Amino acid sequence: MSVNRSVVVYGINNFRVEKRERPEPGFGEVLVKIEYSGLCPSDIKIIRHGGRLVRYPVVLGHEMAGIVEEVGEGVKGIEVGERVNVAADIYCGTCKYCRAGRENLCERPLTFGYNIDGGHADYLLVPREGVPKAIFKVPDGLSLEVASMTEPVACVVHSMNAGKVSPGDSVAIVGEGPMGLLHVLLAKIYGAGSIAVLGLVDKKLKLAEELGAEKLYNRNNYPNIEDILRENPDGFDKVFLTVVNKTTLEESLRLVKKGGRVVIFAGVPANSVSFSLDPNIVHYDEVSLVGSSSYLYVEYAKALKFVSMYQRELSKIISHRFNIDEFEKAVATWDDKENSVKIILTR
Amino acid sequence: MSVNRSVVVYGINNFRVEKRERPEPGFGEVLVKIEYSGLCPSDIKIIRHGGRLVRYPVVLGHEMAGIVEEVGEGVKGIEVGERVNVAADIYCGTCKYCRAGRENLCERPLTFGYNIDGGHADYLLVPREGVPKAIFKVPDGLSLEVASMTEPVACVVHSMNAGKVSPGDSVAIVGEGPMGLLHVLLAKIYGAGSIAVLGLVDKKLKLAEELGAEKLYNRNNYPNIEDILRENPDGFDKVFLTVVNKTTLEESLRLVKKGGRVVIFAGVPANSVSFSLDPNIVHYDEVSLVGSSSYLYVEYAKALKFVSMYQRELSKIISHRFNIDEFEKAVATWDDKENSVKIILTR
Amino acid sequence: MSVNRSVVVYGINNFRVEKRERPEPGFGEVLVKIEYSGLCPSDIKIIRHGGRLVRYPVVLGHEMAGIVEEVGEGVKGIEVGERVNVAADIYCGTCKYCRAGRENLCERPLTFGYNIDGGHADYLLVPREGVPKAIFKVPDGLSLEVASMTEPVACVVHSMNAGKVSPGDSVAIVGEGPMGLLHVLLAKIYGAGSIAVLGLVDKKLKLAEELGAEKLYNRNNYPNIEDILRENPDGFDKVFLTVVNKTTLEESLRLVKKGGRVVIFAGVPANSVSFSLDPNIVHYDEVSLVGSSSYLYVEYAKALKFVSMYQRELSKIISHRFNIDEFEKAVATWDDKENSVKIILTR
Amino acid sequence: MSVNRSVVVYGINNFRVEKRERPEPGFGEVLVKIEYSGLCPSDIKIIRHGGRLVRYPVVLGHEMAGIVEEVGEGVKGIEVGERVNVAADIYCGTCKYCRAGRENLCERPLTFGYNIDGGHADYLLVPREGVPKAIFKVPDGLSLEVASMTEPVACVVHSMNAGKVSPGDSVAIVGEGPMGLLHVLLAKIYGAGSIAVLGLVDKKLKLAEELGAEKLYNRNNYPNIEDILRENPDGFDKVFLTVVNKTTLEESLRLVKKGGRVVIFAGVPANSVSFSLDPNIVHYDEVSLVGSSSYLYVEYAKALKFVSMYQRELSKIISHRFNIDEFEKAVATWDDKENSVKIILTR
Ligand SMILES: NC(=O)c1ccc[n+]([C@@H]2O[C@H](COP(=O)([O-])OP(=O)(O)OC[C@H]3O[C@@H](n4cnc5c(N)ncnc54)[C@H](OP(=O)(O)O)[C@@H]3O)[C@@H](O)[C@H]2O)c1
Ligand SMILES: NC(=O)c1ccc[n+]([C@@H]2O[C@H](COP(=O)([O-])OP(=O)(O)OC[C@H]3O[C@@H](n4cnc5c(N)ncnc54)[C@H](OP(=O)(O)O)[C@@H]3O)[C@@H](O)[C@H]2O)c1
Ligand SMILES: NC(=O)c1ccc[n+]([C@@H]2O[C@H](COP(=O)([O-])OP(=O)(O)OC[C@H]3O[C@@H](n4cnc5c(N)ncnc54)[C@H](OP(=O)(O)O)[C@@H]3O)[C@@H](O)[C@H]2O)c1
Ligand SMILES: NC(=O)c1ccc[n+]([C@@H]2O[C@H](COP(=O)([O-])OP(=O)(O)OC[C@H]3O[C@@H](n4cnc5c(N)ncnc54)[C@H](OP(=O)(O)O)[C@@H]3O)[C@@H](O)[C@H]2O)c1
Ligand SMILES: [Zn+2]
Ligand SMILES: [Zn+2]
Ligand SMILES: [Zn+2]
Ligand SMILES: [Zn+2]
Repeated sequence: MSVNRSVVVYGINNFRVEKRERPEPGFGEVLVKIEYSGLCPSDIKIIRHGGRLVRYPVVLGHEMAGIVEEVGEGVKGIEVGERVNVAADIYCGTCKYCRAGRENLCERPLTFGYNIDGGHADYLLVPREGVPKAIFKVPDGLSLEVASMTEPVACVVHSMNAGKVSPGDSVAIVGEGPMGLLHVLLAKIYGAGSIAVLGLVDKKLKLAEELGAEKLYNRNNYPNIEDILRENPDGFDKVFLTVVNKTTLEESLRLVKKGGRVVIFAGVPANSVSFSLDPNIVHYDEVSLVGSSSYLYVEYAKALKFVSMYQRELSKIISHRFNIDEFEKAVATWDDKENSVKIILTR
Repeated sequence: MSVNRSVVVYGINNFRVEKRERPEPGFGEVLVKIEYSGLCPSDIKIIRHGGRLVRYPVVLGHEMAGIVEEVGEGVKGIEVGERVNVAADIYCGTCKYCRAGRENLCERPLTFGYNIDGGHADYLLVPREGVPKAIFKVPDGLSLEVASMTEPVACVVHSMNAGKVSPGDSVAIVGEGPMGLLHVLLAKIYGAGSIAVLGLVDKKLKLAEELGAEKLYNRNNYPNIEDILRENPDGFDKVFLTVVNKTTLEESLRLVKKGGRVVIFAGVPANSVSFSLDPNIVHYDEVSLVGSSSYLYVEYAKALKFVSMYQRELSKIISHRFNIDEFEKAVATWDDKENSVKIILTR
Repeated sequence: MSVNRSVVVYGINNFRVEKRERPEPGFGEVLVKIEYSGLCPSDIKIIRHGGRLVRYPVVLGHEMAGIVEEVGEGVKGIEVGERVNVAADIYCGTCKYCRAGRENLCERPLTFGYNIDGGHADYLLVPREGVPKAIFKVPDGLSLEVASMTEPVACVVHSMNAGKVSPGDSVAIVGEGPMGLLHVLLAKIYGAGSIAVLGLVDKKLKLAEELGAEKLYNRNNYPNIEDILRENPDGFDKVFLTVVNKTTLEESLRLVKKGGRVVIFAGVPANSVSFSLDPNIVHYDEVSLVGSSSYLYVEYAKALKFVSMYQRELSKIISHRFNIDEFEKAVATWDDKENSVKIILTR
Repeated sequence: MSVNRSVVVYGINNFRVEKRERPEPGFGEVLVKIEYSGLCPSDIKIIRHGGRLVRYPVVLGHEMAGIVEEVGEGVKGIEVGERVNVAADIYCGTCKYCRAGRENLCERPLTFGYNIDGGHADYLLVPREGVPKAIFKVPDGLSLEVASMTEPVACVVHSMNAGKVSPGDSVAIVGEGPMGLLHVLLAKIYGAGSIAVLGLVDKKLKLAEELGAEKLYNRNNYPNIEDILRENPDGFDKVFLTVVNKTTLEESLRLVKKGGRVVIFAGVPANSVSFSLDPNIVHYDEVSLVGSSSYLYVEYAKALKFVSMYQRELSKIISHRFNIDEFEKAVATWDDKENSVKIILTR
């Protein structure tokens, strides 16, 4: 089977599933037969708004797991037939951020689905720069489907570290989409003493509860942040924003406790959002504002461990599965926020 | 000599040096004969604007060193004649912040010169709550005059920790008053690889250079931040704001490197300043905004160690000495920013 | 009821329950009516071997919870009738270790049941040095019985911190007595990925399993450490010794992974144990040997939070309850290691 | 000039300088013209005792700096003519230690001068696995001679981190060879409050003083550790052993303060040394024993920064320069401990 179905984006709102050639791995390269790939809000952003890093045409997709199909000349330590995960980013390793251990801030990453062809396809070619460092072996006993969720989990591991979540912390999470739900699971793993989720859809809040959240606030019923504060007079040690806009930013500074941390987990379209900050909240109350963007490779490795350990919980987040041929249907389903959570593309 | 000259504030812009009774230490209390006390911008703020915590009338002053004059009944481990420093704050020890090791955020501190009588006086009464924890013995060989600077040094130790200054860091410090200059000295001690100071007065910038800064920017000559950035294209790992206003806040986000930290070291009058923050700087660039307010006792103890070690450097920061009787003259001199740096009140 | 039944130790193997006067709280002191106190191996050590810090005669007991009965003159913020925990140690607050934030190494602590009268009594007098810092309010909803276990939990929180247990870690715990079992519970809270317990008694290993351990090794069935290593070829990230002797020390260095940590949680009689260490294990394999002794107050406060959250789990560890009058029976039961776990003295 | 003089070791005590072919860089490989390489005690160990990792015949040398001579096909981002440093180790990047961020414990490193041909030669071939990650650009203004000392400095940066040296710490360093002296320099950079060096040769102790040590102990004059303790009654926060034997290990536990750390910086021949450890020192006094072996790449990058900043100080440590042709003379000089410190091989 050497047809290579690929979701190719040609420009804004211009994409199609097409049949491409199966790539040939060159010197030092690795070809992976993708089995599962996850739909991510970034995919939708790329389709609808493009992105600074995007280079058209590009095959979309950066959450993926599969089986090594072929290895190029000179590749050592990676065998045909091995089950693998491929990280979304191939950090350069030598820019000043990589050298300082802040590789997620790399000045010239290769990112699948952005500036190199990604994982919504039958085959993924891993360029030499990513071999072996971006290829992670999937542990025995972990399904490839769940393994394809390692990338978003790695982002949330990074977020936990940015938030310095420690045992006993009270945590508030804004947003109950896939990333909000992963924040619940990870906060639990990191020992959070209590977890509150602020969202919009009861069905998804119910899922948050199954994953370990005790306090659920549907903002349709709790439009005023004061009402949430009244039930949580002490505030929260850590507030995570998976939804970022003027309102959530301003509310986060009300939710957070003195000495606490607000983690800004999501980006916004350039220059689309700004909010007014009173420096006294940072100075006198020592509230820290920190960001979490992508992950380090050590966090990806740790994520893979957690994905193995919490396979059952993670599979609860999957709401839909579509064959890659039905990519458009997957996108339409993504828009149905009432009913969709994590959407996985099968082959 | 039992006259107790005291700088008493009765309300906004209403203060005088008056002769009070020498206090009598009650059960568990300690009376200190103050030898030196430092004038701090907070003193001026209290005189001119008041403050949330201030309880009139109050004796001003919270940077002080002296000699134990008398101890109340039940006091153990503190002897008459010992040379001591008294911390500015007596943290309660039991509120949720104290219990979490964030005592500088204490919910009910007693603070000398704010809600209990302070150190611009001949005698300081340390209440039972502060005995022994707020009393620190001055090491042999350290002059009491320099010892009186331990409090501001402790604030800057806390600031270094908030900024996580580590060896090799490039550091920018905004402001070249006493606190800016102490930031230079401490950044040097913490191993900073390069130190830039942005200020307004050449004479004080010269002092910054003597203390270890390599790059000096008089904003009168460098009105545009771009010109400073051109000479520092990499930006700074850590930016410390000892002057906080809309402009310095906005500039700090230009000066700081991706992955860096901005430390807001000074408070502003309530609701007087706000600035517009683009969340993408925090999210994508992982710039952290953190505050530094006051200090922990362990930082005060560490500060005292540094004060002992760097006595010679610290005394350079002292520009004027006035007898406590001349308090008004001290205030007038403080206003002469061209010429004054640290002002010490003698007895 | 002002009889004060007290377990008084007069010397080695010389103790009795006697009826003493109810103490009167002096200036700044607090009197607590003890409801529950826990029997600790240290109590047995003091009875049978004495101890460096012990000052005879002394009332035994340092794990205790009760109700404030009376407060001395000058006490603020502590009210009669409040439910409280009292920490075992009153650290001095001013020695070099206290000032460095290492208060558990305090040079002159007052320790209940050692050098001041402790909690195996109807009444506990908290000396002025411990008011308010050593008194912790018991949260609503937490039973005083379980609250009396806060002290050992605090020791184990300190141990987790010494071991830097972080999410996903593989942990081995040697010993399945009360302290071993608390290590299981706390390792779980700290996110351990897998927990193995090495013990001697199946019944207690079963308890370990209920608390979250997956791997149970009864050393009667696994006399050779090789057999345990064969089932755990990767070794353990962290090894905790609640039983310390030449054999467990030597085995710990086999169990631990390269880059891992061995935490020595228990002391031994002076000069009774030593073992031979190959420095290459520390150098080349970067195995760290660290100790955990007592706790910081911030850890005690955190422990109290965990005790509230995990009340149900903690009560499983209690195997016996005896009235304080039956203290000798409690000691005899302690010796029956097959059947006893945590023993609580009621009133 | 394509002759490639190389110091080749054929077995124990069997080495010679021979003229080899200049290697040709294959796909993805880089050829460096070495200008300077440092003689390290490990080189001597390999010559005289061999080593677990060593694969004969091998070209010796792992501290080196030079100029890129030729790049193989497919190499990007590294240009002919660039001045570079090459790290001693090429970590695999995928073993469990590399994935956990403990790459210095890598299970299958390629190490120059051990299992791949090293830097005591005219040319160094960097294998594909090390391109680009093990190649570091030498900053402008840094001489290649001093740059060749980056590798040992990186080891000492790792040691500072293992020892958690923080501003104000009192530090004792055992050994005043090149590594002891680098510990002095780095401890100073990390803000050590006081530095003591225990050595054997006054001339080298004098160098330690120039680099920032205040207390110098020639063990010929201070044979009893008690005499050193008498002058340092508080002990030391951190003790670094660059000389490891039964005596220095036992003494380190006397030198270190309660709550302090002993860093074992050097390995010993397998099974040649062991010492008897009282677990109570670790438990009650919370003394930590930790190891430091090699470095992480982020530490190498940081070391390169320090090497640039402290070029003048580092060049003081160089006692001798020999042309690579005179390698035997260099070895003989190394044996003359009275007179030699760092020996650099020129070309
Ligand atoms: N840091 C990183 O490395 C990283 C990695 C991956 C993703 N992300 C970002 O993370 C964000 C979340 O991803 P996701 O997959 O979870 O997206 P999502 O499915 O859009 O989830 C967001 C959820 O928040 C709800 N919501 C919207 N406005 C809200 C409000 N004001 N308060 C509370 N909840 C609100 C939404 O409800 P409705 O559906 O009803 O609107 C939705 O359920 C995205 O912006 C993505 O780009 C960041
Ligand atoms: N975090 C804490 O715990 C803590 C403790 C103590 C003090 N503080 C605060 O720290 C602040 C600084 O204290 P300080 O004693 O150093 O005060 P200061 O003497 O007023 O020093 C500020 C210096 O900054 C200069 N400056 C003003 N605007 C500037 C600008 N835009 N860019 C660069 N420099 C500028 C001033 O120059 P001119 O004099 O010419 O105006 C002055 O030399 C105060 O607000 C104080 O309340 C905080
Ligand atoms: N770090 C601190 O601050 C701190 C605080 C409190 C207590 N401690 C110390 O912690 C230690 C443990 O306390 P505990 O209350 O748990 O004592 P314990 O009840 O004596 O528990 C020890 C358990 O380990 C078992 N055991 C004995 N030898 C063993 C071996 N070689 N391998 C595995 N298991 C073995 C014992 O079994 P058998 O019963 O069958 O012998 C017993 O069940 C005591 O030494 C205590 O002093 C330290
Ligand atoms: N951790 C790592 O990654 C790493 C990296 C590189 C090197 N190392 C190791 O570090 C060690 C030191 O290297 P180096 O280049 O500094 O070696 P060195 O030149 O042999 O230096 C050791 C110095 O210590 C002196 N000395 C000997 N016994 C002593 C004692 N009992 N007390 C105090 N001083 C004593 C020696 O004096 P005499 O000369 O008079 O004997 C010599 O000056 C070596 O074992 C090396 O293998 C470790
Ligand atoms: Zn990079
Ligand atoms: Zn408080
Ligand atoms: Zn103490
Ligand atoms: Zn490796």
